[in-house]
Amino acid sequence: MRFAPLLLALGLTGSACAASSEAGKSETQASETHIPDAALTVAAQLREQALADGTGWRVVESLTTEIGPRLAGSEADARAVAWAQAKFKALGFDKVWLEPVTFPKWERRSESAAIVGKHPQPLTVTALGGSPAGTVEAEIVRFPDLAALEAAPEGSLGGKIAFVDYQMKAARDGSDYRNGGAIRSRGPSAAIRKGAIAFLMRSAGTDNHRVAHTGITRFDDGLTPVPAASLTIPDADQLARLLARGPVRVRLALDCGWDGEYTSQNVIGEITGREKPDEVVLIGAHLDSWDLGTGAIDDGAGIGITMAAGHLIGKLKHAPRRSIRVVAFANEEQGLHGGKAYAEKHIGAIGKHQIAAESDFGAGRIYAFNTGAPAHARKATEQIAQALAPLGIEYAPGQGGAGPDISPFAAKGLAWAWLAQDGSDYFHLHHNADDTLDKIDPQALAQNVAAYTVFAYLAAEADGDFGSALKADPAASE
Amino acid sequence: MRFAPLLLALGLTGSACAASSEAGKSETQASETHIPDAALTVAAQLREQALADGTGWRVVESLTTEIGPRLAGSEADARAVAWAQAKFKALGFDKVWLEPVTFPKWERRSESAAIVGKHPQPLTVTALGGSPAGTVEAEIVRFPDLAALEAAPEGSLGGKIAFVDYQMKAARDGSDYRNGGAIRSRGPSAAIRKGAIAFLMRSAGTDNHRVAHTGITRFDDGLTPVPAASLTIPDADQLARLLARGPVRVRLALDCGWDGEYTSQNVIGEITGREKPDEVVLIGAHLDSWDLGTGAIDDGAGIGITMAAGHLIGKLKHAPRRSIRVVAFANEEQGLHGGKAYAEKHIGAIGKHQIAAESDFGAGRIYAFNTGAPAHARKATEQIAQALAPLGIEYAPGQGGAGPDISPFAAKGLAWAWLAQDGSDYFHLHHNADDTLDKIDPQALAQNVAAYTVFAYLAAEADGDFGSALKADPAASE
Repeated sequence: MRFAPLLLALGLTGSACAASSEAGKSETQASETHIPDAALTVAAQLREQALADGTGWRVVESLTTEIGPRLAGSEADARAVAWAQAKFKALGFDKVWLEPVTFPKWERRSESAAIVGKHPQPLTVTALGGSPAGTVEAEIVRFPDLAALEAAPEGSLGGKIAFVDYQMKAARDGSDYRNGGAIRSRGPSAAIRKGAIAFLMRSAGTDNHRVAHTGITRFDDGLTPVPAASLTIPDADQLARLLARGPVRVRLALDCGWDGEYTSQNVIGEITGREKPDEVVLIGAHLDSWDLGTGAIDDGAGIGITMAAGHLIGKLKHAPRRSIRVVAFANEEQGLHGGKAYAEKHIGAIGKHQIAAESDFGAGRIYAFNTGAPAHARKATEQIAQALAPLGIEYAPGQGGAGPDISPFAAKGLAWAWLAQDGSDYFHLHHNADDTLDKIDPQALAQNVAAYTVFAYLAAEADGDFGSALKADPAASE
Repeated sequence: MRFAPLLLALGLTGSACAASSEAGKSETQASETHIPDAALTVAAQLREQALADGTGWRVVESLTTEIGPRLAGSEADARAVAWAQAKFKALGFDKVWLEPVTFPKWERRSESAAIVGKHPQPLTVTALGGSPAGTVEAEIVRFPDLAALEAAPEGSLGGKIAFVDYQMKAARDGSDYRNGGAIRSRGPSAAIRKGAIAFLMRSAGTDNHRVAHTGITRFDDGLTPVPAASLTIPDADQLARLLARGPVRVRLALDCGWDGEYTSQNVIGEITGREKPDEVVLIGAHLDSWDLGTGAIDDGAGIGITMAAGHLIGKLKHAPRRSIRVVAFANEEQGLHGGKAYAEKHIGAIGKHQIAAESDFGAGRIYAFNTGAPAHARKATEQIAQALAPLGIEYAPGQGGAGPDISPFAAKGLAWAWLAQDGSDYFHLHHNADDTLDKIDPQALAQNVAAYTVFAYLAAEADGDFGSALKADPAASE
């Protein structure tokens, strides 16, 4: 995942800041949006039913076991698309369809690193997504953080390898990814500007295991990319200890790189609404994962949570007023490709989108809820918050933002909801080989399913809207 | 490490069971061994001094950082020997010398595995030490434990890969290594007898990370070795889930094997005793490690603990009555080669060895103490136990055994002491890539140093012996 409030910090999208402000602000709505009592009664039943239901777990078990790692553009990408189609159908969704998403394809073939010289020993590394291939052997220059690298004199790293040695801190809201993610995104370009021939970083993670964290990086226009990789946290510790004793040379060998284009699919399942079938509440997650783990917490969990929520609503005797649309987005990891394609295709129907939420921050319990809806939908937001409260979820007015694949559309005026997951251990597992099914607590997952079910159902039942409307000039807020 | 009570279960030595019975039993000693009051006073001072001293930590930091992984017979083996010599000298040991240890050399070059067919995906594996090279692709047959594999009909695994899927349980005393270690030692031979062309096991470990646990295996005489490897615990989970869905084929490719002989060294440092310099209290640990981690808990910690204990005793104004001998054993991991060589060389001086203890179960706090000394030395054992009690260490009469490198000598009649470490998390890290310095708690390490310092000093000061004497017929107990 990458979450919207951080996208700007990561330099990955120019339009993300709009997503964290109140969306819409369509003051033209005269009446206040609210949720009928009958719907609140049904939601309370759905909530208890979801807590006792194992669908979310079974979905993520199936995806991570049968498909396993599913790097965008790999052979597993196509298998994952077929899996998602079949799973939507098996779960009783009324309509299931595909929407193509085309993107450049990046491949990882091999990677290794070692300290050479007086204290020779292997280092465990992984290439950052987007890194070119290359083999270099050079002296290491360590920087405690990105600012220190950026402050280095021009040309001072000529022929050397830059090493940014910043240790991310764990937090419930994952807030220090602001720093760790920025190093991954902007570090390689900064290093090149100073003359470096390769880039190494301490993994953007909070664990202490020998599993390196990957993730997309990018190179600024006009720069010649250099090999870029991350060290596991114990390996970064080791390198730092050796650097404290004197100069250290490292050999880094990466075989990876971009190789043409690939067309994957956003896979979409819909439960048809009974009164306004062309209006949709959108919930979703991303289907792709990095290749090192099996993408359980990033983002098999989100797929399980949102497919299960749609399924439980679909089993109701009476469908909700609006349709429930579940989107399994293609290639979030390498640049929100699925989310951007969805926004582009559906921009004309932005007003038909009641509200949207993405689950992409692991499988921890949800602890807070909010929407970006304008004043006329505050009451409905509060009603949903009340229905979520028995799940241990707090109403957090003024907080939150759109999930990553929602953010391109939210920047255009789509209303968003935020269901904040506890990410205290998210960066133990994020983008590394340890992201496997055993890390998911089935009961925490069921709490997520219950929350998404309640939210989606109530939003679909609301009298009135949450303010989705095309902004007159979205660029003005950028 | 491998600990003595389990050696028999592992089938790795035929003489280990003697080590867990009371050693010596030399009823010829008339007087009761005891420790003078003055020595107990000095020991109390040493204990407090050791708790506040950082030598043990600095030693393990130096070894794991500067040498890193040190597989027996690798180029790092020679660097580790030179390191240990230099460290003993720097720590003020009076005498430092080497004793050669020759053994077959095993190398790991590359290893990979993948599920092929309907659910293709990579598996994370590591070759077991002693495995031959080989590439096979075949169907998996799963067994829940070693007994189930051994009970399979002869020839029933023809052309297939045996997979023993036993999950070790964590315990303070590591007792379930009895099962995990036996699978690693005896599983491959059992699989070959049933016709298998390769052997896979769930790692003998208690973690949930993507780091496979290696360790030595052996093949029974007359069998043609087959590739043998362990899966990480999440990978074993994954394979088991897929097997529950139907037949699974795996491709396993190992490049590794035996390659000639190598001569390493037991590295020995001694603090000369003031009254009986030719009598020694032996403490030690093994200098080699597996190649996947940096051998911090197995057994850099033991090297740090015992070198620091010798150093602290060596700094006393008055040397102890007997000498303190610290042995950094060569190649414990592949068959107790250093321990066997020491016993063979020094068998004639067994009676000059007051008592011996090895630290080889990690860096957790010591919680229990005992010796294998006969009745005439029980009082001295109790006195040492009393001096250890302020460290939170219980006296555990009737329990314990010799450490692995001590066990060949103990089987001949050497008196042993047992300082039991808390190994609750030992098998999270044992023989895998996660065995790195960050896993050691410096304060727990200092508690170990304090215990070894107190024990070694008091044993060296005792009036009387602990019963070391060549057994009339050691074979009788085997």
